[in-house]
Amino acid sequence: MEEKIKITLPDGTVREYPKGVTGLEIAQSISEGLARNVLAALVDGEIWDATRPIEKDAQVRLLTWNDEGGKYAFWHSSAHLLAEALEALYPGVKFGIGPPSERGGFYYDVDLSAVEALKGRGLSEEDLPKIEAKMKELAQQKNPYVRKEVPKKEAIEFFQKKGDPYKLELLEELNDGEITFYQQGNFIDLCRGPHIPHTGLIKAVKLLNVAGAYWRGDEKRPQLTRIYGITFPKESELKDYLHKLEEAKKRDHRKLGKELELFTFSDKVGAGLPLWLPKGAVMRERLENFLRRAQVKAGYQQVVTPHIGKKDLYVTSGHWEKYGKDSFQPIRTPEEEEYLLKPMNCPHHCEIYKSRPRSYRDLPLRLAEFGTVYRYEQSGELHGLTRVRGFTQDDAHIFCRPDQVKEEFGKVIDLVLYVFKALGFDDYTAQISLRDPNNKEKYFGKDEDWARAEREIIEVAQEKGLNTITVEGEAAFYGPKLDFMVSDALGRKWQLGTIQVDYQLPARFELEYIGADNQRYRPVMIHRAPFGSLERFVAVLLEHCAGNLPLWLAPEQVAVLPISDKYADYADQVMSRLMEEDIRGFVDHRAEKIGRKIRDAEVKKIPYMLIVGEKEAEEGNVAVRRHGEGDKGTFSLEDFIKHFKEETKIAD
Amino acid sequence: MEEKIKITLPDGTVREYPKGVTGLEIAQSISEGLARNVLAALVDGEIWDATRPIEKDAQVRLLTWNDEGGKYAFWHSSAHLLAEALEALYPGVKFGIGPPSERGGFYYDVDLSAVEALKGRGLSEEDLPKIEAKMKELAQQKNPYVRKEVPKKEAIEFFQKKGDPYKLELLEELNDGEITFYQQGNFIDLCRGPHIPHTGLIKAVKLLNVAGAYWRGDEKRPQLTRIYGITFPKESELKDYLHKLEEAKKRDHRKLGKELELFTFSDKVGAGLPLWLPKGAVMRERLENFLRRAQVKAGYQQVVTPHIGKKDLYVTSGHWEKYGKDSFQPIRTPEEEEYLLKPMNCPHHCEIYKSRPRSYRDLPLRLAEFGTVYRYEQSGELHGLTRVRGFTQDDAHIFCRPDQVKEEFGKVIDLVLYVFKALGFDDYTAQISLRDPNNKEKYFGKDEDWARAEREIIEVAQEKGLNTITVEGEAAFYGPKLDFMVSDALGRKWQLGTIQVDYQLPARFELEYIGADNQRYRPVMIHRAPFGSLERFVAVLLEHCAGNLPLWLAPEQVAVLPISDKYADYADQVMSRLMEEDIRGFVDHRAEKIGRKIRDAEVKKIPYMLIVGEKEAEEGNVAVRRHGEGDKGTFSLEDFIKHFKEETKIAD
Repeated sequence: MEEKIKITLPDGTVREYPKGVTGLEIAQSISEGLARNVLAALVDGEIWDATRPIEKDAQVRLLTWNDEGGKYAFWHSSAHLLAEALEALYPGVKFGIGPPSERGGFYYDVDLSAVEALKGRGLSEEDLPKIEAKMKELAQQKNPYVRKEVPKKEAIEFFQKKGDPYKLELLEELNDGEITFYQQGNFIDLCRGPHIPHTGLIKAVKLLNVAGAYWRGDEKRPQLTRIYGITFPKESELKDYLHKLEEAKKRDHRKLGKELELFTFSDKVGAGLPLWLPKGAVMRERLENFLRRAQVKAGYQQVVTPHIGKKDLYVTSGHWEKYGKDSFQPIRTPEEEEYLLKPMNCPHHCEIYKSRPRSYRDLPLRLAEFGTVYRYEQSGELHGLTRVRGFTQDDAHIFCRPDQVKEEFGKVIDLVLYVFKALGFDDYTAQISLRDPNNKEKYFGKDEDWARAEREIIEVAQEKGLNTITVEGEAAFYGPKLDFMVSDALGRKWQLGTIQVDYQLPARFELEYIGADNQRYRPVMIHRAPFGSLERFVAVLLEHCAGNLPLWLAPEQVAVLPISDKYADYADQVMSRLMEEDIRGFVDHRAEKIGRKIRDAEVKKIPYMLIVGEKEAEEGNVAVRRHGEGDKGTFSLEDFIKHFKEETKIAD
Repeated sequence: MEEKIKITLPDGTVREYPKGVTGLEIAQSISEGLARNVLAALVDGEIWDATRPIEKDAQVRLLTWNDEGGKYAFWHSSAHLLAEALEALYPGVKFGIGPPSERGGFYYDVDLSAVEALKGRGLSEEDLPKIEAKMKELAQQKNPYVRKEVPKKEAIEFFQKKGDPYKLELLEELNDGEITFYQQGNFIDLCRGPHIPHTGLIKAVKLLNVAGAYWRGDEKRPQLTRIYGITFPKESELKDYLHKLEEAKKRDHRKLGKELELFTFSDKVGAGLPLWLPKGAVMRERLENFLRRAQVKAGYQQVVTPHIGKKDLYVTSGHWEKYGKDSFQPIRTPEEEEYLLKPMNCPHHCEIYKSRPRSYRDLPLRLAEFGTVYRYEQSGELHGLTRVRGFTQDDAHIFCRPDQVKEEFGKVIDLVLYVFKALGFDDYTAQISLRDPNNKEKYFGKDEDWARAEREIIEVAQEKGLNTITVEGEAAFYGPKLDFMVSDALGRKWQLGTIQVDYQLPARFELEYIGADNQRYRPVMIHRAPFGSLERFVAVLLEHCAGNLPLWLAPEQVAVLPISDKYADYADQVMSRLMEEDIRGFVDHRAEKIGRKIRDAEVKKIPYMLIVGEKEAEEGNVAVRRHGEGDKGTFSLEDFIKHFKEETKIAD
């Protein structure tokens, strides 16, 4: 008699299937439609090929394009399809790694130096259509992705014969025992999987660009060619995607930063070190003031600490051991001392905590600083304001008693949500990262403190009505955390605010407070940064609003446009009245036609244009035009100011 | 017949004297009183011994205790008197240098390691009275200071015989030819002079303290003992001085900084790197905001630049060549780049200037930044906030056309005076530093630009009614400058604001603008910093006002003091109303008597105490007490707020 196993589906129903049933077969037993769409299966929490036999009772969830896991398998399989096409077109190609890409799509790193067909020239974007065509051709063959376990020795022999030094290097690092290979068509790869059932599911293919990438990210190893691509199960989805990509290019913060004169970079100052131009500096200052005010209300105290600290400070904090070698190197002095650029503000704040004895009545102590920190990134990794070498954190550290963690955590959530609201981010989720419950010994701090903090974070996130996902094993070794992911206007997800509990630094710095019972206790630290970094936040905000900044943040809020030189004086009067009210702007005194002045102000994305001519000058009025919206009618200057103040209230 | 020479006195009168006449003899010819007080003579711009014969026609000014030059000679001679006393008490003492001290008084660096009388122990403050007594004894002998020129060879033999290695080292560096020795009593020193007529003029002596000092300031050379002292021609002046010293100790900003919880230092962060505590950070922020507002009104634009820059940036600016070796060393990256901590902001601002083409219409461009810079100082030189390794300059660079220098310079003077007024510094002078007219080739930039700028600076300082002294040869090699010296409440002088014209950096960075004629021109830079550095300014301000900060700057402006727990709620209401008006303070909720609460608020130098009890709570009033002034009567809360706003107006 056929052996049966019990499969529990996500809705809780339990069905019996023959032992060795696959996810795909389960799907077929439910509906043909589902079977056509199934890409992989989540089996007891692990993503499997939909075609892999299940040998024992299990929880199974079928994954389609709507699931992150489904997309992951789809793009992973697409990377293999790319490799297959490359091998067909360019015999002699050697393969590095080919994973799904963090921001969607996939890439493959390949070494083309031995490819005769290329005659020593590198691959360029012009070669991509040909490779795309080959991928589509191979996809139409509907070749299944076949999983195979082989002994390590056999795997090594395979790649030795094929002549793939990178795969051999990867193999060396794997444990002895069975290795998994995947094959589709003529292409065989070393791969953990999982993969989709067959290549035919990949209906739309676009290769995006070609870049250089060091093997294993190490600039001392060979530079490989990285080919980025994106694929979809439907042609229409690719079209949507490419449209959004086009839109994203227009919103690229590097482009907007230049057009709006917000920031610049200088080779002489150094890569990844932004220089904030006057308009950008105004915007930064507004952001800082906005948060500063909110923080004062929430009981934070501002501090200012230097940008360097003795190496010893970072030996104590543990940063030296962890990051020392791969970072900016120590600064020596003629007295043979060693200083480091500060990579974070926490050690300095711990020293402030220690600058005098603390009692339980002093806690929570909330120390905030717009602290500029410096972290080394490889020059190839730098990107506009999102990956930089120097950035300003809207940092704060809350030193509190263990019994205050929940309340403080809740207050930080309130603050983060207040910031998001003021900046127009209304689509966000929160990820709560907890310990791996099976490996509690990996984590620093007392078991009961962790248990309590984790429980409290989950409770308080619920009380605040957050849309959360909870992930076990993702906590930092020093404490559990909650990260906010915001979706921007193009649906792209960005990690912004973070709140982290920390049991480790208070111990490393031997921080103490005297309890009501006169005994010494160790405080808990909460690290938090609603923006994350000002640089990154400005980048995300610019891309989110396509450079149309909220009125209160716009470096130039108003352009006063006299119709002709005759009204220059009145225009100046208007501007000085506005300046009295701290409204930022300028008078366009150029000898241009009013139409041109309006067009130029629109291009500069200035929120309000105030057009003044004879009638306005006589009556003390302004003709108001809103960026992107057109004429709003004529108002008395004082009414306009009142309306303006109303609109910018949130930031004051 | 006796040969005659013509002596021109400061009032313009010309008198004939025998050739070889001395300053002292000239004084005697005028009045016995003057002769008793004469300490030295200014002969053709050079300070001479009053007893040195004048051999040709000369301009002569007799120097007394009222002249800086007179004090200089007096203290210099006092250093020799100290040395004489030491040699008498401690045979075997070896002498380093013994100059007048920059801040008044004098010191002598001595090596006591071979002194048997001390039996290997160092000198301590307890030894000072004995040395003082010896100095007074020697002073009463009225020994003349005798100048003698000796050939270098003879001088070397003298010190070889005496066994004074430090003097020998100094001698080695002198040109061959005649060397000057001075002798008083039994003591002979290598010395350029000048000195006072005799030791009897030194009537009051006080040795102040003992410190370590490396020979020639080099930590690799032996550490000598530095003995600081002060002397006066009258006992009463010493008394005054010691009283002021006592007062200065009370006002020591390091002491006040600690008491008022403004800043702290941490060994782990590093010496000379202040950590601004919450109250200090509030004060800093107020100062910054105050200046920022004034600067916005004056047409400055704020920028933000990183705290590091590639070494190449400082090679271009010339800083690397000048300061590189004696400063914080370069930061290397894993990619083998080299960065430096920025010692000044100007190179970064030049790069911002260069970030796009500039036209004559764009000028003046005034870029301002509260830029934190790092400069290495030997650890022994560090002192509170006045000598630090990291500090924030209220920096700005004005890029302008040569024809705009005068106007811009004048505007900067206005700004500096506005700042001084707001902070209560009403006693200041300005030093204008010009080229050495006999060495024009030492200076960078065109002769006609220098001539014009110097003329214009003098004119504009006059137009602004500044009390100036003009010093030739004190300009920086890159341009003329004006420095403000303020006198604090104890009459001590501090150099604060500086305004400097710079022709060099624009050339080194190849800055340009397009003129109205479409030709390329080079702009001029003006560096300026009204505070100088926030750290130093705070130090001076604290000492000036003895910690009684102007109301608008006080970190805590108001303490609300409920008479008992019953009025706690009303006190909280008062405080929240004040916070709505951005008034900073707290409620003293401790279960202490009202007298104690008042005393504690007085100690913390909180400007206003609002005492609230039954009557105040009923009537919505507050009983107002002003720090150091006592009761001011009862006011309605709203009236108090109105009065408060009036008093803090200058900063808003």
